[in-house]
Amino acid sequence: MSKIEPKILKGFRDYDPAEQSARQSMFFAIQKVFESFGFLPLSTPALEYKEILMGKYGEDEKLIYSFKDKGDRDVAMRYDLTVPLARYVALNQNQMVMPFKRYQIAPVWRADNPQKGRLREFYQCDIDVVGTDSVLADAEVIVCLCKAIESLGVTNYLVRLNNRELFKIFTSVLKGKEEQVAEIIRAIDKVGKIGKEGVLKILSDKKISSEAIKLTQQWLDIGSGIEALGSLPKFVPKALLTEMEFAWARIIQLYGMTKIMGIPSEKISFDPTMARGLDYYTSTVFEIVLPDMPEYGSICGGGRYDSLVDQYSKVSVSAVGGSIGIDRLFEAMVKTGLVKPSASADVIILNLEKDLGMQDEYLKIATILREAGISCEVYYENPKLDKQFKYAESKGINYAVIMGGTEKNSGTVKVKNLKTREEKEIKETELVSFFGK
Amino acid sequence: MSKIEPKILKGFRDYDPAEQSARQSMFFAIQKVFESFGFLPLSTPALEYKEILMGKYGEDEKLIYSFKDKGDRDVAMRYDLTVPLARYVALNQNQMVMPFKRYQIAPVWRADNPQKGRLREFYQCDIDVVGTDSVLADAEVIVCLCKAIESLGVTNYLVRLNNRELFKIFTSVLKGKEEQVAEIIRAIDKVGKIGKEGVLKILSDKKISSEAIKLTQQWLDIGSGIEALGSLPKFVPKALLTEMEFAWARIIQLYGMTKIMGIPSEKISFDPTMARGLDYYTSTVFEIVLPDMPEYGSICGGGRYDSLVDQYSKVSVSAVGGSIGIDRLFEAMVKTGLVKPSASADVIILNLEKDLGMQDEYLKIATILREAGISCEVYYENPKLDKQFKYAESKGINYAVIMGGTEKNSGTVKVKNLKTREEKEIKETELVSFFGK
Repeated sequence: MSKIEPKILKGFRDYDPAEQSARQSMFFAIQKVFESFGFLPLSTPALEYKEILMGKYGEDEKLIYSFKDKGDRDVAMRYDLTVPLARYVALNQNQMVMPFKRYQIAPVWRADNPQKGRLREFYQCDIDVVGTDSVLADAEVIVCLCKAIESLGVTNYLVRLNNRELFKIFTSVLKGKEEQVAEIIRAIDKVGKIGKEGVLKILSDKKISSEAIKLTQQWLDIGSGIEALGSLPKFVPKALLTEMEFAWARIIQLYGMTKIMGIPSEKISFDPTMARGLDYYTSTVFEIVLPDMPEYGSICGGGRYDSLVDQYSKVSVSAVGGSIGIDRLFEAMVKTGLVKPSASADVIILNLEKDLGMQDEYLKIATILREAGISCEVYYENPKLDKQFKYAESKGINYAVIMGGTEKNSGTVKVKNLKTREEKEIKETELVSFFGK
Repeated sequence: MSKIEPKILKGFRDYDPAEQSARQSMFFAIQKVFESFGFLPLSTPALEYKEILMGKYGEDEKLIYSFKDKGDRDVAMRYDLTVPLARYVALNQNQMVMPFKRYQIAPVWRADNPQKGRLREFYQCDIDVVGTDSVLADAEVIVCLCKAIESLGVTNYLVRLNNRELFKIFTSVLKGKEEQVAEIIRAIDKVGKIGKEGVLKILSDKKISSEAIKLTQQWLDIGSGIEALGSLPKFVPKALLTEMEFAWARIIQLYGMTKIMGIPSEKISFDPTMARGLDYYTSTVFEIVLPDMPEYGSICGGGRYDSLVDQYSKVSVSAVGGSIGIDRLFEAMVKTGLVKPSASADVIILNLEKDLGMQDEYLKIATILREAGISCEVYYENPKLDKQFKYAESKGINYAVIMGGTEKNSGTVKVKNLKTREEKEIKETELVSFFGK
């Protein structure tokens, strides 16, 4: 028989038991925090009609995995969890109680360039509040995500905060030229990577007016943090004052609310250059970065998207949400030693005799231990004990239970601690209490 | 703006928070049982090279979702979790400690006909033991799956058990005609749906020899259960005796081992007509059915596949595994009332005043409750209390916390039990202990 090469697709990866156990613990911790804020789980499919996903993600839309299914339908693998949520809301809003608070922890797929260290399949942990434009919902989403990453042991993080409404300032010098305003926003969003000069170069290459370029330059010079926020109003042309003030006040409220909910002010930083790539955000936008590990970019992001559901529905529905990119965070945590992948059963029962009667004893003991919540393996075959011990140690199992004919006859077992090598003979009936459960 | 119709693909579905909470509890219970048997989690991608999946699933292979990705690679969405496991083992066997015991709980995709009540996206909960041909591993897989469904409250189930090696009996009358033997097995596997006459008709349509048809007829007349197992040896031609006896003994051992591990004999039934559809099984095969609900077919299935890893690897690796089809089981459990979908936060803090100072109090209380593990919502806006109560009740929330100016000044809150309508005034500092955590 000719062999098939056992290869895996570029940008995709397996997680071995040690890694996956650590990831599952992370999912579980995050889920617990999400639920403590009253978010409830929702599940949507991996595949959607392609047209549901198109026109939502901006220039990265080309990264969507799409194809024709066997029924000749244009289908696509979900690119994020937000657009499917909007589709769900549009489809079910008549039966839904609003505001609707849901979480979803699930993989998404993007045909991104794996050279950048980005996976093509990665998990997102999303929370969203649908059906209210209350700034409190924005604050809760941000705080809930902060608490979720804190629950993983990550304490050094920074929330970068902005409001897309502020970008309306560029319409004051580019009336009616929405595409140019969009170009400016996209360019500004890259300042962290390409610097101020890089941003201005893009704009002059795109033949943006010198007035708009000058305003962009001023915008880039505002800096960040609470002081920058204070200096904003002096930029604002009268015609835009009301709209801009609303966005400005929202940011100030977010500073206050997040502080009350336990996020110290120094962890929140207004950043007028931060836009987030996705097209659907309308007002509040934020991301969370790890100042010690800038190479991982943002490990969290989100914002308010008050017009997304409208694209499928006659009824307008406001919404805000955010997402933890768990795989990038996992990688960062492994690197810093916050996660040490490992996994094993608690106990192994060694297999001393071919005689089936003996093996029956092992199976009985295993059944008792498992039912008491102690995870337990029985060695399947009966090679020399050396080999069985080696197996147990290489898997990191804590205890070996050894029962030969002598022990069986006296109703005892030997228990060996595989870390300390200490061995003890105890009654078979004491096994469960020995393992402390 | 023109609207996009918010539709969902045929054969795919959303699970709302009540349903998804129930499913997640099921996943968690199953995972706990899997881990108690020493199975550890593995994660493999949703997409694989198409050639990895092809040639493994028999006639249903046409149901695989496959397409060309943007790099012009032929890729496919995983059809089950077993073939990706075999690919993983072939790729990593040099670093792996054998036997390797893993579980995986993840969705798979099959472009099946949704008219049959089958979803095109559904979760499988798989366990597999790789790297041993010990019958003990077969027994553990079967028992672990039984214990997993018992942990969900399902007690009336039946394990149908067979061994594919027994089908070698047909080679005694069809020497060298392997394709005809395969036709017979496929036809026999359908006896539950089409009856004996149906099976025999298929075979005569396919021009199978009358001798083989006669043997098939005898095979269908064996019946099932331990008595049928006892009557097997009299069918066996001498030339096949050794091979057949090995399979026969394996089934008897499985009866014994599963009993010792707590599965009553009446829940295990040898069934010589059961073959399982997938091509990769070689020896033990089994499925679990719900006798009360035959319309759901098998909710579990599995078997030994000692040649699958070989297709990618020079080193031969034995393996056995099985899978719970959780979505079909979920549907059956909802129908019988074993699962009652529902989900909500524990507590809602009502919003009495627009005044921000008041709202700050609510946020403080919410933060304290959440950190104590009590899930809690703050009502985002401040409409009349009627509306807020209605929201809380329609979401099934248990308690409302009410704090107005009077309460704030006296350091108290009112707590209303939304089920009993009982109201109590307590100190703000007693809130956490009031909710009993």
